[in-house]
Amino acid sequence: MLGDFMYSNPTRLYFGEHAMDNLKTELANYGPKVQLVYGGGSIKKNGIYDQVTKILQECGKTVFEDGGVMPNPTTEKLYEGCKIAKDNGVDLILAVGGGSVCDYSKAVSISAYCEEDPWDKYYLRMEDVDNKIIPVGCVLTMVGTGSEMNGGSVITNHEQKLKIGHVFGDNVFPKFSILNPVFTYTLPKYQMTSGCYDIMSHILEQYFSGTDDNTSDYIMEGLLKSLIHSWEIAMQDPENYEARSNIMWTATWALNTLIAMGKSTDWMVHMLGQAVGAYTDATHGMTLSAVSMAYYRHILPYGLEKFKRYAIHVWDVNPAGKSDMAIAEEGLQAMEAYMKRMGLVMNLRALGVTEDMLEGIAKATFVMDGGYKVLEKEEIMQILQESM
Amino acid sequence: MLGDFMYSNPTRLYFGEHAMDNLKTELANYGPKVQLVYGGGSIKKNGIYDQVTKILQECGKTVFEDGGVMPNPTTEKLYEGCKIAKDNGVDLILAVGGGSVCDYSKAVSISAYCEEDPWDKYYLRMEDVDNKIIPVGCVLTMVGTGSEMNGGSVITNHEQKLKIGHVFGDNVFPKFSILNPVFTYTLPKYQMTSGCYDIMSHILEQYFSGTDDNTSDYIMEGLLKSLIHSWEIAMQDPENYEARSNIMWTATWALNTLIAMGKSTDWMVHMLGQAVGAYTDATHGMTLSAVSMAYYRHILPYGLEKFKRYAIHVWDVNPAGKSDMAIAEEGLQAMEAYMKRMGLVMNLRALGVTEDMLEGIAKATFVMDGGYKVLEKEEIMQILQESM
Repeated sequence: MLGDFMYSNPTRLYFGEHAMDNLKTELANYGPKVQLVYGGGSIKKNGIYDQVTKILQECGKTVFEDGGVMPNPTTEKLYEGCKIAKDNGVDLILAVGGGSVCDYSKAVSISAYCEEDPWDKYYLRMEDVDNKIIPVGCVLTMVGTGSEMNGGSVITNHEQKLKIGHVFGDNVFPKFSILNPVFTYTLPKYQMTSGCYDIMSHILEQYFSGTDDNTSDYIMEGLLKSLIHSWEIAMQDPENYEARSNIMWTATWALNTLIAMGKSTDWMVHMLGQAVGAYTDATHGMTLSAVSMAYYRHILPYGLEKFKRYAIHVWDVNPAGKSDMAIAEEGLQAMEAYMKRMGLVMNLRALGVTEDMLEGIAKATFVMDGGYKVLEKEEIMQILQESM
Repeated sequence: MLGDFMYSNPTRLYFGEHAMDNLKTELANYGPKVQLVYGGGSIKKNGIYDQVTKILQECGKTVFEDGGVMPNPTTEKLYEGCKIAKDNGVDLILAVGGGSVCDYSKAVSISAYCEEDPWDKYYLRMEDVDNKIIPVGCVLTMVGTGSEMNGGSVITNHEQKLKIGHVFGDNVFPKFSILNPVFTYTLPKYQMTSGCYDIMSHILEQYFSGTDDNTSDYIMEGLLKSLIHSWEIAMQDPENYEARSNIMWTATWALNTLIAMGKSTDWMVHMLGQAVGAYTDATHGMTLSAVSMAYYRHILPYGLEKFKRYAIHVWDVNPAGKSDMAIAEEGLQAMEAYMKRMGLVMNLRALGVTEDMLEGIAKATFVMDGGYKVLEKEEIMQILQESM
């Protein structure tokens, strides 16, 4: 646990099949005007919209609808949401959906009363919030992003061709989140396995950083083993409550700051994946899986000790009589085989990337310095080529 | 993650060598009157008292001293503390010490404005708090109890020969806690290893419950491995910052409710140990270590699957060609050997327990029902006899 840090996470989580029963109690803590945020309308098909609006009605709330949040919420949508929030003086923003809906709700919560362009102030310049913040509550219907218990909010500005994520402080975290694993049963397999790899990547990108002996690494190994175990079960049996609930809980703790404590953290796979995402319409988790193996094989020599530990602790590689390098490589092979078995996309070509895009993707890749190797531009090109 | 649950932990933790630098910022959130709670005075010898009072002075606080908190805080002391708090209308209770000092501070915080006897209402009858709560902040000087980030508070009533711990809700959790691993360097080895076993027992008593596949179990295995690793280092090298910091962080997460999520939890070792504590003046952690092996060997047949998993995941037992029972027993043997190496007390006789006390200890042992076997009175006697 080297380095000084602060840990604070005030979000109240209600977890389980009956988690929604707690919405009424939480709603009582806020005034009558609720901005109801959701995405493309799947919640209207699966009944969650009806459940939530019935409870809002029973609590005597006035509802201001704010649907149609897109997978990558835009500045245009943000400005619209701010207008709804400010014009009506809403008391609570209730996000019903996955990571995008939660991210967008947090953006509205800090932007509605911002006196200048919130994109400039809170995303481009990444300033701390100094205006009124509207409280946010979440009803989670998809897993992966951890947005239900953190300060992260990613917004895309199409005009400027920029997608920026700001990780805000604990004053921006959702006040409460409702997590019912059953809500995730109906997610298509492609989306589900993509979300699971997003979770795995969140953990790995914090794990593969630092050379110290850190309790956070041990917690991460536990989370990884639980995820690997439950993901495989959920792929075979999508309505296995136990597996779904373990995945949902792991997703939350993979990105709610706990496991980052004392770690420098890397995030290069996300940087590469996001640049790929800007050039294709590929699903986020698949942009990560497509570049991961080439990236990890590239940095392995710089973080050999950790890759060896990963092989033994997470993939149960037997180290007897093998060189460190052989152990580490066997770990990555086990990971790769598992990823293929889970149906992940393992190369960029399958996501629609063509050779002529690579230069642009490399240029759009933001270079982080918390991992085992600060990448040069040629190394990024090499990783992208190896991922084709 | 079977079952429904709520997770909420609003305590802000400042961790590291410079954690105290944040005390000033936190103090600014409260009024001028601070009740300064501490124990027997070791903080006056090691300079922590001077550090804290200097900061309080710089912040213009009026300090009301409340020292002399004993290892097992009593109702008499509680009534005195309540008088200080209420007569002076203190705005904040600042606990500087270990678990007892934190526990006591929480007791004063809920009891000062209680209109009846707080012992009756909050400990005997375990009611929820419905009166004004004075906020508590902690500067931690010892590790083990997790009291810095939970709602636990143990108070002893000598007249009634009762020691009762009430785990309060998140409105009673400390508002902030300051954790500097360096403060733990000077703790005598006996106290330190006893505290480490308390941490280990907290984890194990949550781990050895439930038969489901639960992410919490994986997190616990990570915490156990980190603790086992760092404890051994700290025993050899008490000023190893990395080891001390890992132990301190593990202690917090071992008992701040996270790993209990979805678990029934057992706590029989604590029940046995506390009954031994009532008959001797033995150090808490040692009362746990003295009864642990007999207890775990007794319940092993009822939780064989989990003991097997424990052996493989935590103690790296190679399962090849062995029966489940042999694997599980090998795990407990590895644990026992480790405990002996760490200098823990492994039998009750060494703590001053005599044969004629056993009947009384067995009677004083509260029986819990969350583990693998609800113990009959004869079984408790048998475990105590085997622990002699």
